Amino acid sequence: MLRMSSLFLRTLRDDPADAEVASHKLLVRAGYVRRIAAGVYSWLPLGYIIYRNIERVVREEMDAAGFQEVHFPALLPKEPYERTNRWAEYGPDLFRLQDRKGGDYLLGPTHEEMFTLMVKGEYSSYKDLPLSIYQIQTKYRDEPRPRSGIIRGREFVMKDSYSFDVDDAGLEVSYEKHRQAYIKTFDRLGLKYNIVKAMSGAMGGSRSEEFLAPCPTGEDTYVLCEKCGYAANVEAMTTPDVKVEGATPPAIEVLDTPNTPTIDSLVDVMNAKFGPGHKASDTLKNILLIADGEAISVLVPGDREVDVKRVQANLAGVKELRLFEEEDFAKRKELVKGYVGPQDAKRFGLKLYADPRVAVGTHWITGANQLNKHARYVTHGRDFTVDGFIEAVEVRAGDACPQCQSPVIIDRAIEIGHIFQLGRKYAQALDLTVLDADGKSQVVTMGSYGIGVSRAVAAVAEQSHDELGLVWPLEIAPAKVHIVATGKDDLPFDTAEKLASSLEANGITVMLDDRREASPGVKFKDAELIGNPIIVIVGKALADGKVEVRIRKTGEKREIALSDALTEISSLVRSHKNSIA
Amino acid sequence: MLRMSSLFLRTLRDDPADAEVASHKLLVRAGYVRRIAAGVYSWLPLGYIIYRNIERVVREEMDAAGFQEVHFPALLPKEPYERTNRWAEYGPDLFRLQDRKGGDYLLGPTHEEMFTLMVKGEYSSYKDLPLSIYQIQTKYRDEPRPRSGIIRGREFVMKDSYSFDVDDAGLEVSYEKHRQAYIKTFDRLGLKYNIVKAMSGAMGGSRSEEFLAPCPTGEDTYVLCEKCGYAANVEAMTTPDVKVEGATPPAIEVLDTPNTPTIDSLVDVMNAKFGPGHKASDTLKNILLIADGEAISVLVPGDREVDVKRVQANLAGVKELRLFEEEDFAKRKELVKGYVGPQDAKRFGLKLYADPRVAVGTHWITGANQLNKHARYVTHGRDFTVDGFIEAVEVRAGDACPQCQSPVIIDRAIEIGHIFQLGRKYAQALDLTVLDADGKSQVVTMGSYGIGVSRAVAAVAEQSHDELGLVWPLEIAPAKVHIVATGKDDLPFDTAEKLASSLEANGITVMLDDRREASPGVKFKDAELIGNPIIVIVGKALADGKVEVRIRKTGEKREIALSDALTEISSLVRSHKNSIA
Repeated sequence: MLRMSSLFLRTLRDDPADAEVASHKLLVRAGYVRRIAAGVYSWLPLGYIIYRNIERVVREEMDAAGFQEVHFPALLPKEPYERTNRWAEYGPDLFRLQDRKGGDYLLGPTHEEMFTLMVKGEYSSYKDLPLSIYQIQTKYRDEPRPRSGIIRGREFVMKDSYSFDVDDAGLEVSYEKHRQAYIKTFDRLGLKYNIVKAMSGAMGGSRSEEFLAPCPTGEDTYVLCEKCGYAANVEAMTTPDVKVEGATPPAIEVLDTPNTPTIDSLVDVMNAKFGPGHKASDTLKNILLIADGEAISVLVPGDREVDVKRVQANLAGVKELRLFEEEDFAKRKELVKGYVGPQDAKRFGLKLYADPRVAVGTHWITGANQLNKHARYVTHGRDFTVDGFIEAVEVRAGDACPQCQSPVIIDRAIEIGHIFQLGRKYAQALDLTVLDADGKSQVVTMGSYGIGVSRAVAAVAEQSHDELGLVWPLEIAPAKVHIVATGKDDLPFDTAEKLASSLEANGITVMLDDRREASPGVKFKDAELIGNPIIVIVGKALADGKVEVRIRKTGEKREIALSDALTEISSLVRSHKNSIA
Repeated sequence: MLRMSSLFLRTLRDDPADAEVASHKLLVRAGYVRRIAAGVYSWLPLGYIIYRNIERVVREEMDAAGFQEVHFPALLPKEPYERTNRWAEYGPDLFRLQDRKGGDYLLGPTHEEMFTLMVKGEYSSYKDLPLSIYQIQTKYRDEPRPRSGIIRGREFVMKDSYSFDVDDAGLEVSYEKHRQAYIKTFDRLGLKYNIVKAMSGAMGGSRSEEFLAPCPTGEDTYVLCEKCGYAANVEAMTTPDVKVEGATPPAIEVLDTPNTPTIDSLVDVMNAKFGPGHKASDTLKNILLIADGEAISVLVPGDREVDVKRVQANLAGVKELRLFEEEDFAKRKELVKGYVGPQDAKRFGLKLYADPRVAVGTHWITGANQLNKHARYVTHGRDFTVDGFIEAVEVRAGDACPQCQSPVIIDRAIEIGHIFQLGRKYAQALDLTVLDADGKSQVVTMGSYGIGVSRAVAAVAEQSHDELGLVWPLEIAPAKVHIVATGKDDLPFDTAEKLASSLEANGITVMLDDRREASPGVKFKDAELIGNPIIVIVGKALADGKVEVRIRKTGEKREIALSDALTEISSLVRSHKNSIA
């Protein structure tokens, strides 16, 4: 039983100065967490109860799925991370340190290397696989901008699992098992979430999905079709096929278009020349980029912006991608800034990629590769061909859903989980092989699966609060029932005490506000701020043999007979999970 | 249920090359832990089950005592540790690092500062106290010689509690509550231990006790009286009062003792001069030391060695203590090396301390403060007086117990817990005060209480193993029952499976060896190595409707009817805890 009279808790009236998002404000005000340093928090008793409840649910679901728990240190030697090149790749995000002998160590941001080496140390045969192992462990990332309280911290707890299979079919099964376990976990945590298609990395497996908990202040944006449920992050969103109809356009016509280096100026000139009705979407942008040192051009409609991150995510194997700068134009005089067109790309030795909107058969107003000249009727397939299609434009609300063509929305969310087919990248780098049935050595294929355990506390808070305070789901609340005793006599306090004890004896956790000095108003406010799902008030109504029961989520109140309280509250807890939390 | 067919476990036949102590060897061989770097280990599934069982027991006992759980980060900013001077004092034992902005951080070796600041942040009145809060958290110390596997690691888990009281009487109560909680905890963990008096620090409170688990390879030595149970670490051991009887000795007699700079040479000369029978214990050593820059002399009987660490622990407030070196003698010509006596100390301006054995009324053969001269009948109280008594000699087996005068033994042990009255040191440095009943500001007094949670895994293993392997106590074993199915037919495997399921349904954890390919011998050896308390063999005896039950600890074996197995094994688990584990 948690007694407010002795609980190590002081609620705050005001929002902390450094808090921007609701969960951060409320978790500080209600006495769940305290800041120690940028992105580094400590848990007060109520916060740690919530945290541990979430950890328990995660562990139970992992165990139920047959995954085995192991545990790694956070302090890790450099060597394995050098072998996969991540010691260098992580850059300043990695906390690095030296021990007294000058040995290099890091604080693990994620443990792919260690899991791979652990399996390599124990297993050697295909008969040992499949294997899925996990840990719930403290991780470190030196975020450039730690923010939103415990949502993006520099020390945080993750559940990370890895699956090990001898072939791709096995990986698919392991992936699906994790996916199902994640669904069960997040459902139990009371989180609303979407499973969102994500880009897989350059190497290995192909599937990658994020579990995103929608919330207006979330850091992740993603695309959601409210009609059919399609969800993808911006990089992974795809464009439905464009149907090209109508007659073949006339032959290319080169036009004098002085001083039209921008789309707007070009549209104006076209309207002036050929009458109104020309739109930016009739023009074609030739976006010049440097991909790992090589110049490429990406074609997008003139009314769309290019999304360089998205281009890169879709260009397999490209490590560095940037827009052309003045000096790049200076080196390639044939590419006339503001007047580039795709029709001479082959001649220029320029790789061409097109956004799917620039489909074969479409024709465009675009640069004529001469200063102050554009061309119209430049037709894909007739006047130019491309080396590949690539998702390239900034996704917008209203774009067509690739599944059902309805307009999508752009939503914000917190990433709470990620499942990912890693493939053979780490096993290859660290030489994790097993002998197959024929005695031949096979590189193991891996999956990687993460849940942000400490972050989930904030994600639930973010989705589940109102203007009065937090509203915890029954499964993870600090206590299921919050009993407030009011008045000056002993009777309500003794009655509340007895009710609390009987509920606890029934296996129902109780927080009891047994403070004698606090006013009823203060107690009610604290109860609402703290956010346990059922609030029971033992006070005035006791004169009529009654107590008041309030449902925190709905605000619903009713009086019930004290003699029925134990039974009614117990059945409320056991049978009405969904309606109250 | 843990199934050997899929458990992530490979037992090893040979001891690891780097292991010296039994727990380390067995925990590696039985597949509980693996080394990652010096003093840094990972847990395999069986190891993490044991670890979590121990953590659970610790948490349950802390909660039962009314202590509240909080949780701090391991990554901590420098500032609070600078305010208490520990940033400097810790020296190379502290892991230090910088973040991307060059801010100084440390990996917490212990969290006094953070707990103090947390309470300061929430509480302000004497009415808020007493308070005891704890965490179970990963700690870091850059040990100069990490060794003995997880006994002395550089990353390890501790339960650390702190109590906060407004006065000394309150601290005494909080201390006693922790002491009782520790007794219950270690009893449940099945550890044999002694509660050993330890020295308290220079500041604040006075009581300090260590919980030491005796084991032959332990790093800590301590004094134990097997008769009355008195136990103390070497620093805290006290000497019983010396009764001085007999007549007053004659006046001092100065003797020519050429070339007698050592006790042995002095005894030889005395025997030659006055006949045999002189002993080293008749002579007095004048040990010259530099205490924080000041010369002092410590008097101990000639047959005893001085224990400088012990002297320092007993000299309140002395930060640096070292023996005289040649240059110290060179600076003080009046102190003639090998011929110093206490009778001129006042004249020399030398502070004198005596071991209790050098009691008032005792007389000694000692230096005459002249080269090649000694004196006899030099009597404490008559010929010299001291500034204080101080425990100074190296403790020996056979020294008298301060409680019952019986000869003590010197024993080795692993420190598993420490309770300690910190007093006001941290509260003062970090300004933790509360208003008392009169509205006056009072500095809070604190206690500090630690349990080595990860270390306890090894401590239990160290105390509880035999030549075959580990022998876990029932409360923390990976499983209570280890069922081995043998044979080539399905029957024993199906029977074992059914029995395992019924036991699990009864709330009894089971490890089932369901491997078809392993030989019975391998399975028995693994069962013994892994160390679950009850081993059940479902094999040959099944033909007679029987299974064999073995008690791992005693080696006792008997056959029981399969039909009784569920009942008998259940009652064995529930009622015979002490006899089997």
